[in-house]
Amino acid sequence: MNDNLFHSQVRTVWWEEDPPDRVQVGILDQSLLPQQIVTLHLQHEQQVAEAIASLRVRGAPAIGVTAAFGIALAAARLLAERQASQQELTLAELNEHVYEVAQLLCRTRPTAVNLFWATERMQRVCLEARSTRQLVTLLKEEAQAIAAEDAQACWQMGVYGAELIADGDTLLTHCNAGALATTGIGTALAPIYVAARSGKHLHVLVDETRPILQGARLTAWELQQEGVPLTLITDNMAGHFMRQGDIRAIFVGADRITANGDVANKIGTYSLAVLAHAHQIPLYVVAPCSTIDLSLPSGDQIPIEQRRSEEVTTLYGTPIAPAGVTVANPAFDVTPHPYIAAIITEKGIVRPPYRENLRGMNTEH
Amino acid sequence: MNDNLFHSQVRTVWWEEDPPDRVQVGILDQSLLPQQIVTLHLQHEQQVAEAIASLRVRGAPAIGVTAAFGIALAAARLLAERQASQQELTLAELNEHVYEVAQLLCRTRPTAVNLFWATERMQRVCLEARSTRQLVTLLKEEAQAIAAEDAQACWQMGVYGAELIADGDTLLTHCNAGALATTGIGTALAPIYVAARSGKHLHVLVDETRPILQGARLTAWELQQEGVPLTLITDNMAGHFMRQGDIRAIFVGADRITANGDVANKIGTYSLAVLAHAHQIPLYVVAPCSTIDLSLPSGDQIPIEQRRSEEVTTLYGTPIAPAGVTVANPAFDVTPHPYIAAIITEKGIVRPPYRENLRGMNTEH
Repeated sequence: MNDNLFHSQVRTVWWEEDPPDRVQVGILDQSLLPQQIVTLHLQHEQQVAEAIASLRVRGAPAIGVTAAFGIALAAARLLAERQASQQELTLAELNEHVYEVAQLLCRTRPTAVNLFWATERMQRVCLEARSTRQLVTLLKEEAQAIAAEDAQACWQMGVYGAELIADGDTLLTHCNAGALATTGIGTALAPIYVAARSGKHLHVLVDETRPILQGARLTAWELQQEGVPLTLITDNMAGHFMRQGDIRAIFVGADRITANGDVANKIGTYSLAVLAHAHQIPLYVVAPCSTIDLSLPSGDQIPIEQRRSEEVTTLYGTPIAPAGVTVANPAFDVTPHPYIAAIITEKGIVRPPYRENLRGMNTEH
Repeated sequence: MNDNLFHSQVRTVWWEEDPPDRVQVGILDQSLLPQQIVTLHLQHEQQVAEAIASLRVRGAPAIGVTAAFGIALAAARLLAERQASQQELTLAELNEHVYEVAQLLCRTRPTAVNLFWATERMQRVCLEARSTRQLVTLLKEEAQAIAAEDAQACWQMGVYGAELIADGDTLLTHCNAGALATTGIGTALAPIYVAARSGKHLHVLVDETRPILQGARLTAWELQQEGVPLTLITDNMAGHFMRQGDIRAIFVGADRITANGDVANKIGTYSLAVLAHAHQIPLYVVAPCSTIDLSLPSGDQIPIEQRRSEEVTTLYGTPIAPAGVTVANPAFDVTPHPYIAAIITEKGIVRPPYRENLRGMNTEH
């Protein structure tokens, strides 16, 4: 889907089936970008789980799609193995396997709800199948549908969000909520791409986004590829540029949106939101409806992933802090809904009051 | 002076004179900390200028002391060279040399006013000398006086500031305004050290402070040495921890304070100040009176140093962003005085209204 966007024709995650009895999940290893462009061909669900946990594929929508492909892969792999060894595989066994793989994948990252949304949707397919072969086919088709819907949702968010961008605007974004975070043109970056394509002249300030530097490594690279002018800054510069009056709006993605409109997103989003509010700059959250978790009344209930100290204390293996230092490394923070000017979904732009206006946006939860 | 504080007996900058006809300025090369503890022995004013420009020695008070030692070194060096080659050196020539070296050193870093304060103070010594030998002696004594006064000021700021810290407090600091930024126990860290020494149990959250990581590399190391419990965080986590209610006060240093109380300090300070204000957490600026520049009515007039892109795009030589990316790298930002709860100096704690209460605090400007 990214083919529509990028000169480099880079894709995030995809299904590989050639020859048909040997299926793989292809991913671009984002942990190596932008210095190396390496494609991985995952052949086992354990590899898929590792790829998600170690951020080889990241971004809430892309995680959901990858988990869906991972479940389809796991079912196809098990059936092919049993057939090769001429051992029987019952539909009940395969259903059980799908359930276990879904549990495995759900343990990788706790915050992004798209992961749980996608695995639940995949598990519902089990109810429809009458044979193991049919289940394998249905799972593959469902995963591909999730990927295609994600790409379509990106375009729709882009079109809705572009209305909020004027010619000449300078915008700020945090982390990577771009093509690399989805199977389409991104979430937060989708309005920027659509606006730029329509001839609006834009400039994007990109937060580098410590500790994993998704802004410096991924967003800067994406925007460069697409020819959108950008300036890379460290996270602690955002307030300075807001005060200078340089920033017209902030676009970020989301890992989970609760019923009241609170948003979990990459660590640093909350600081940006408070700064934006103090400078009367609108903060827009761009996310597909699969990110909305109506089962949680507020952001206080969202589990926040705590990641390894080494992500903060080392960079590409080089220590950047004294040995033995204590570190906090929450991967996400929660931005309360009063700081959010609007939530841009594929179904349209949602404004406050969120509890009322988000109702029914995602019936899956 | 740091000997009083650190088990490791590390010093920031000092005068070396052994044998007496061969003088040097000793510095700890902070660009290599904490992985390597390397002492440099600077023998020429050009080396002193390079050491300041490339952040081998940094921190507003330490820059001032280093520049003072650099001028004393330059005068002693020139006189010794002329004597060795049996060439005459007139007092007028030496005065001219002192002026030129002061200009050289003032070009290294534009924001910290202590640099200009110290070089002006050194140049005034020229008015008193009756001979070249006397001038060399007076310059050395003046530089040593500046260093000793700085160390003394640190203790006084520590004693005043410690009154603002209660047993059990968690505090936040940004960049390094510690012993490594001074010839004493630091500015922002001085109250923390004094409070800890007096038996108060403290915990310090340390912003890593991109791009140069003075927090991760220097402050975390200093606090470790002194046994003050700390947690290292990335800059973009500060708001998250403020929202969690973990932070009782913020202590930062300053590179220049204008007549109205506006403060230039390490990039990211302004963002912290806005976040602190939103969470009703006091932000304290700790700085000696030499940092106060009454010649500037407000922070809008402070020149902000723009540094090289490579500080953002590479880390220890490893690229962390795509090649050719445009970068902004302001080394400082300005925090308007309404965000500052108090300014702690060696003469006492200054509260608003700053324009009135800072008057006469530094008569050197």
